[in-house]
Amino acid sequence: MNIKMVGYILTKILGVEAVLMFLPILVGIIYGEREAVYFLVPIALLCLIFLLGLRKPKHQEIYAKEGMVITAFSWISWALIGAIPFTISGCIPSYIDALFEMISGFTTTGSTILTDIEALPMCMLFWRSFSHWIGGMGVLVFVMVLTNLDKNRSMYIARAEMPGPEKDKLAPKMSSNVRILYGMYFALTAIEVVFLLIGGMDLFDSLVHAFGTAGTGGFSSHSESIAYFNSAYIDGVITVFMILFGVNFGLYYLALHKDFKSIFKNEELRLYLLIIMVAMVLVTMGIRDNYGSVFEAFRYASFQVGAIITTTGYCTADFALWPMLLQIIIVSLMVIGACASSTGGGIKVSRVLLMGKCIHRGVRQMEHPKSVSVIRVNGKKVDNDVLSNLYFYIFAYLAILVGSVLLVSLDNMDFTTTVTSVITTMSNTGPGLGAVGPSGNFASFSILSKLVLSFDMLVGRLEIFPILMLFTAGTWRKRF
Amino acid sequence: MNIKMVGYILTKILGVEAVLMFLPILVGIIYGEREAVYFLVPIALLCLIFLLGLRKPKHQEIYAKEGMVITAFSWISWALIGAIPFTISGCIPSYIDALFEMISGFTTTGSTILTDIEALPMCMLFWRSFSHWIGGMGVLVFVMVLTNLDKNRSMYIARAEMPGPEKDKLAPKMSSNVRILYGMYFALTAIEVVFLLIGGMDLFDSLVHAFGTAGTGGFSSHSESIAYFNSAYIDGVITVFMILFGVNFGLYYLALHKDFKSIFKNEELRLYLLIIMVAMVLVTMGIRDNYGSVFEAFRYASFQVGAIITTTGYCTADFALWPMLLQIIIVSLMVIGACASSTGGGIKVSRVLLMGKCIHRGVRQMEHPKSVSVIRVNGKKVDNDVLSNLYFYIFAYLAILVGSVLLVSLDNMDFTTTVTSVITTMSNTGPGLGAVGPSGNFASFSILSKLVLSFDMLVGRLEIFPILMLFTAGTWRKRF
Repeated sequence: MNIKMVGYILTKILGVEAVLMFLPILVGIIYGEREAVYFLVPIALLCLIFLLGLRKPKHQEIYAKEGMVITAFSWISWALIGAIPFTISGCIPSYIDALFEMISGFTTTGSTILTDIEALPMCMLFWRSFSHWIGGMGVLVFVMVLTNLDKNRSMYIARAEMPGPEKDKLAPKMSSNVRILYGMYFALTAIEVVFLLIGGMDLFDSLVHAFGTAGTGGFSSHSESIAYFNSAYIDGVITVFMILFGVNFGLYYLALHKDFKSIFKNEELRLYLLIIMVAMVLVTMGIRDNYGSVFEAFRYASFQVGAIITTTGYCTADFALWPMLLQIIIVSLMVIGACASSTGGGIKVSRVLLMGKCIHRGVRQMEHPKSVSVIRVNGKKVDNDVLSNLYFYIFAYLAILVGSVLLVSLDNMDFTTTVTSVITTMSNTGPGLGAVGPSGNFASFSILSKLVLSFDMLVGRLEIFPILMLFTAGTWRKRF
Repeated sequence: MNIKMVGYILTKILGVEAVLMFLPILVGIIYGEREAVYFLVPIALLCLIFLLGLRKPKHQEIYAKEGMVITAFSWISWALIGAIPFTISGCIPSYIDALFEMISGFTTTGSTILTDIEALPMCMLFWRSFSHWIGGMGVLVFVMVLTNLDKNRSMYIARAEMPGPEKDKLAPKMSSNVRILYGMYFALTAIEVVFLLIGGMDLFDSLVHAFGTAGTGGFSSHSESIAYFNSAYIDGVITVFMILFGVNFGLYYLALHKDFKSIFKNEELRLYLLIIMVAMVLVTMGIRDNYGSVFEAFRYASFQVGAIITTTGYCTADFALWPMLLQIIIVSLMVIGACASSTGGGIKVSRVLLMGKCIHRGVRQMEHPKSVSVIRVNGKKVDNDVLSNLYFYIFAYLAILVGSVLLVSLDNMDFTTTVTSVITTMSNTGPGLGAVGPSGNFASFSILSKLVLSFDMLVGRLEIFPILMLFTAGTWRKRF
């Protein structure tokens, strides 16, 4: 482990947070809020840390291990420092609560401990939602470009941060195309802001909700979430953009190059859209009687399905009151999540696809015990590395799920709340069922549970590996 | 698929059921119950079926595929016919309910749709519990021995029926040692009967509860289950025997050969005992205040832990009223289950061990990306076949779990009941939480749910493969 280089890159990454924190100050100045001054404290701290890293270390070699440790530490320290203004301003008096809120922001979860969201100053609400937008795309590759780190080195960091099972194939593309990807992210967000402004939202709300959609986060500036606006147009715009941000960004890259054939043939996209359509139909049928017309039922069904499968977690209806079948569908969508290399969470549609293909292969081998059958996705053979990665991911996911549920159950909440609070945080969705349903929040959990659920959010967003890396003995050996 | 041979073996297997059905008639005669006469109907039916199979087919080749299909059909048809006396006698008026009860019996689950168990005649109660004992050890290998089927052929059937991840290693041993294994099963059951008689149970109850323990089933002749006897001695005896029947029977074989070193070094046994000890300590601490002394708390804690990890499902306390941590521990024990090649269900301790080792290997490979590390259990390298079997099993398990929960949720019960009813039936445990907790039952489910849960019991007992085999198109091609 090249600890000096890890520290050096960390100081750069924290420097970027200092720059970004001037944005909520700007918002505070516009709205004349004196709470904006509290952002100067973390900025000062971050500048101090940045100064520590002015000298570049002699040995600059970093590999996968360092990449993961840098990623894990960056996300944790961004949240640790990003939470400071909430606590010193008194907006969120408990620092653990503020940290939970910030981790929920950066990991694009959207679970909140706030009971009265409107009580927060605009600058704080802005920073809270802006963290979704930062966390959605991942900051580290962006920072790598800014700091001119060698391409091969930034690859290791990109790999640790990008979601999805096939990291190796993505990474080389990433380093050359990072500007295009960020450009598309900017552009899509800007288009959504325009659409929301047309719908009559003010600029502040448009920005906040575009950040929440783009990052598939789910923080709103209103306690009622999107239901506050009570507009079919706004519901529609946000539904479409949530689903768009849940698509693999690599496909937008293909669209730019007019390779529509590959897009059409993409198995993950097809499964993603199929699941969405089936879920929308079932939910529409299930809630038909709650609404005046099929169209109205479809409006609420499509919004909730879009919000949950993309793990955004915005709400316009309280699905915790729906028939049990629909609640189970919602929880299943949560676990599945969005496409790989999107801003969404969950175990990803591509992993579900791979698991399905593994089952199919197993059945074929039962029928023909001597056949050796390969697994293909999009017509290409899936590497054994990708598969063993999948097995490891699923087993570790299950182990962390069970461990977290055990720890959270110490709070002695009901079974539904205990289990779904862990599922929704591990999937970076936001709401669950029971006390953490759409009309509830995470305020009543103990400090231990809040820390466990924060851990689950990080594990979910960074897909287990980098966070697990921090806890392995081998990581901390052999320094130079 | 050699359908003629499958049919031929099936007729033999059903002939054995006819013979076994004379036992409840004997019980009926002893207790002077005229309901015993209803057993003659299925016996007549079985004899008719047996006569159909007097001519041995020309082509006698059977392979893994046929083995699985025979296994699946045997279990299903035993239950289909075994359920007849309950319905025609009017004891369980609905045939679907009777079928649920019989599948629950043969799969050693112990979930019941009965609301008043004591209302049943003794002969019916005997048959219900006897099905646990038959199902516990698996009948097919026994039948193979009786019918003098060639060893290599019976191996394919033994493999389909034996629980645990390493079927290949077991099977050759099995075919030569099947008499010893059944002998030990008989002997251990007989010893338990003696211990229960000493505790003051009458012979009928002793037999019923020894069958329930030996098969890790859980049917009792009393609605209150073991709590009815209210005896620390009986609780203790049953706790010890449940745990003994949850041990890999291969280890008893080693004990007969005085190979205690291998037993001591067996990793699955060590993990099994470790989980039991930790769970007993935690549960004792958690329910300490409900009881007069630590010893009393330990009595109830150890019984419930033993009953659940071995997936027996007997109860002396209502764990659905315990603190949430203990409820989560109970559900986790249910999923883990007993050792491979025991009479217990669940995913098996050996699979949990393998999953843990896969996670450990994944972590090692994160640290040293170029290292190729093998997985060892008991000092021996685990075959790739065993591992790909594990992946398939776990993925199929998860898929069936989610699918079943979706179907059962149509009944619109609460989340806890919906989820745990599927978990407890897939694990062949018996009780779950919520409406299916220790003081509840499965009577209020719809016909669809009862069929889904029956399917889950079969899938759990036969470990997915044979049942899945029935649904694959390739199974039914190429007959001769």
